[in-house]
Formats: sequence, structure tokens, C-alpha cells
Amino acid sequence: MEKNVKLIIEYDGTDYYGFQIQPEGRTVQGEIEKSLFVIFQQPVKIYGAGRTDAGVHAAGQVINFKHGTERTVEQIQRALNGLLPPDIAVKSVEEMDEHFHARYSAKRRRYKYQILNRPYRGVFLRNVAFFYPYYLNVELMDESCKIFTGTHDFTSFKASSREVKSNIRTIYLFRCYRSEDLVIFEIEADGFLHMMVRILTGTIIQVGRGRFSPEKIRQILEAKDRRQAGPTLPPHGLSLVKVKYE
Amino acid sequence: MEKNVKLIIEYDGTDYYGFQIQPEGRTVQGEIEKSLFVIFQQPVKIYGAGRTDAGVHAAGQVINFKHGTERTVEQIQRALNGLLPPDIAVKSVEEMDEHFHARYSAKRRRYKYQILNRPYRGVFLRNVAFFYPYYLNVELMDESCKIFTGTHDFTSFKASSREVKSNIRTIYLFRCYRSEDLVIFEIEADGFLHMMVRILTGTIIQVGRGRFSPEKIRQILEAKDRRQAGPTLPPHGLSLVKVKYE
Repeated sequence: MEKNVKLIIEYDGTDYYGFQIQPEGRTVQGEIEKSLFVIFQQPVKIYGAGRTDAGVHAAGQVINFKHGTERTVEQIQRALNGLLPPDIAVKSVEEMDEHFHARYSAKRRRYKYQILNRPYRGVFLRNVAFFYPYYLNVELMDESCKIFTGTHDFTSFKASSREVKSNIRTIYLFRCYRSEDLVIFEIEADGFLHMMVRILTGTIIQVGRGRFSPEKIRQILEAKDRRQAGPTLPPHGLSLVKVKYE
Repeated sequence: MEKNVKLIIEYDGTDYYGFQIQPEGRTVQGEIEKSLFVIFQQPVKIYGAGRTDAGVHAAGQVINFKHGTERTVEQIQRALNGLLPPDIAVKSVEEMDEHFHARYSAKRRRYKYQILNRPYRGVFLRNVAFFYPYYLNVELMDESCKIFTGTHDFTSFKASSREVKSNIRTIYLFRCYRSEDLVIFEIEADGFLHMMVRILTGTIIQVGRGRFSPEKIRQILEAKDRRQAGPTLPPHGLSLVKVKYE
């Protein structure tokens, strides 16, 4: 009887060419499948809930894979944490029914984008927060976030490179707040278009610095035109924090 | 008229052979003096409040140096943060009177030692917290900290390598507490012997895991014998967080 195993993992994406396996370059999926090969002595394919880009982190990525051995979830977690490099760790392992799929069963994904907003750069957050030394009006930024909640066509906020069936997504939560020197965005949706969070935050930051009004944000959303939105913020401020299932 | 400049700096000690300049290997002092040479076009010697060992971090190290130019503190901070590597940053710069010396004027130094205490290792704190997966009785550890407050001879808690005039130090504050998955030690004293914090915490952890009683800790302190104390914890959990002056 085959077992379907769900893992919650965290990784520091700094030294990876993203989650998804590539012909060249170190990937999170590649490292995990390499370790699983050592454990199971045969190829094991994993499925991830979110295909994070190069440099993007995860505090709560979810993956699943199937195996037909007697290994317990505790043994799998211990073996993986022993084999994986220091920038990937397994937080929890659990057995699911055969229908569970990390990507297709996911109902909501939550991301966090961190900006270090103070006059001088920091060292301990240099790989997990985008340094922006100028004044940001966080209240206006939070107001702009609210414009996006609900179901919208996010064509203005996706990288033009990837074509998908629909650009419509539902945002359940989108907020921006200050926590000491950090300005933090939290966003939860049923799914995200390619680079959507980084373009949304790169657009809202224009409100924070006084270049766009919140009204302008509404117009950009309605325009369905990537060229009207702001720049794509760098990947290292972004982290996939949680994936929710039924 | 020569100016005496005080800087508060932070650094990630992971890739350094410690603070103090060495004949070989990258040091924090070496990097800062190299950048100051670029700014002032002549050798500038800096003095640090604490000579942190290889791998030890600082969130609030203090240094000072003298110069005879018209450069303002704002210019110096901006220039240094532009020239220094990403793992060293200048938090603040201020002019002091001629007698100020980062090391000799310091009255108290505060260090923090972080232990990641949960069953699985983490990725984001891997360079700033010592991973210890087994149960720790933090209440008993905090009780052990209290034994050390006040003025004592810390011969049992210093690396045997360095000879100093006196092994007597005064601890003003020493506590241990849990914050989610972290067990954190905070210790403030007039000064520390070589590796004193890492030997103290390595000894107190023996209480937390049930190997030593708090009473045993008292005996080790009185024995003035390094061999009776616990092991030296690794450097990466340690950080110099604050230096206090009059």
C-alpha cells in the first residue's frame, strides 16, 4: 500500500535557482529529491505547493511525495534533516490520504514581503528583507492593499513571461504594517500569478513614497496593463509563509 | 583640532576570524580600517570595546578612531556603509571628547547567547543560534544564572590560553528565558574573561539537561578550576549586544 506523505519545509532561498528543478543550477526540489533518493534508494518525485522564484524564501512551503516502504514519518523527518543542506529544513511530516496533492489541493497561500525601512542597512536581515532607506507612508500603503482584496483580474500585476488560463485571483487578506524598522506586507490568496506579490508591493511602495495616489492604484488594476504598474521588488524580501488546505 | 569619533556597528561574524586584526584572515577591524583608509586616504587605527572571537556576532559593538578632517559624522556613516561589506554596518556615529576610548571607557558590556531548542533544526537562524534539540529545564537554568551575579573569581570559566591580571569580574545581570523556540541568555558585566560567556552557558546547559544541580554550579565557581566546568558552547550563538559608558 503506497503512502502519501506531506512535509512542511523551510528554506533560505538565497543560494537557490528557485524551488522548481532546472536543467542547471541548484534548486530546492533538486536538493530534496537528491536526499530522498539516498533514503529510498530509488527516484522519488516531489510536488510543491508554490514554485518560488530564485532568491525567494519559505517558512512554510508544503510538498508531498509517495513511497511504498515501512518508513515512519519520524524516520523520514530525521533522515531528511540529516541529509539536507543547512539552508533547507523539514518542520513536520504527516501521512495523508492518497488524494492529497501539495499543489492542487491547496486552497490558500500566504506570502510575506519584508522591507528594512531605516536610514542605514542591516546585516542580520540582509538576505530576507529589501533595504529601502527613504520615508514610507505605511498608512497609505495599507489603504492601498485594501483595494486589492476580493476577486479581480490581476493582468497588470503579472510578469509577461508566463501564460496562464486565467488572470483572475481572489485575495482574502492583504495588509501592510510597521514592526520596528521593518515594513511588512502580508497577503493571502487562492493563488498568485508569476511575480504578482513583488509587482503588487513594488506598486504600493510608490504610494508610500508619494508618487502614486491610492486612486491611481485602482486605475492600474482596471487597466489590465503591466506597464502601468510599479517595478518588481527584488526576490529576497519575499517568503512563502503558509499553505492552507481544507 | 583632532576629532574623536564613536561608532556603533553591527556585524555577522560568520565569515570573520573575529574582531581583532590578525596576520592572516578576514577580520572586522581589518575591513573597517580598510574602508577608513579609502575615506581618509591615510591609515586610521580603530579601537573596539569587545574583541569578539571568530564566528561571534555584534548587534552593538562600539569602536572609536581619531581624524583631523572636516568630515561630518553623517558623511562618515554614509561613506562607511557604502564601502563596507554587507555583513558589517554602521548604526550610528557621534563625536566624543578627546578622552573617550571605546574599550577603556566602557563600564559594562552585554552579551546574548541564543539556543534554538526544538526537535528540528532551522534555516534562518542557523548562523546566529546554537541548535540543541533536547529538553532543557529553563527555569533551573535561570536559577543557576543567579548564582553568578555579583563579584566573583571566574577562573573556572575562562579559556586557559590567555593570562590576565585578574580573574575577578562583576556580573550585573544574568538571566535565561524561553522565547518561542529560542532559549536566550542575557548577561551584563564590567568585563569578561576569554570565552567566559560560552563556558558559563555551556556549564549551565548541563543543569538544564539534568546533569548538574544548581548546587554543583556553586562548587564549580568556588573550585577555580576550568576542568570542572562544562564545555565551551560554539561561537555562532553569541552576540555582543550593547556597551555602556558613563
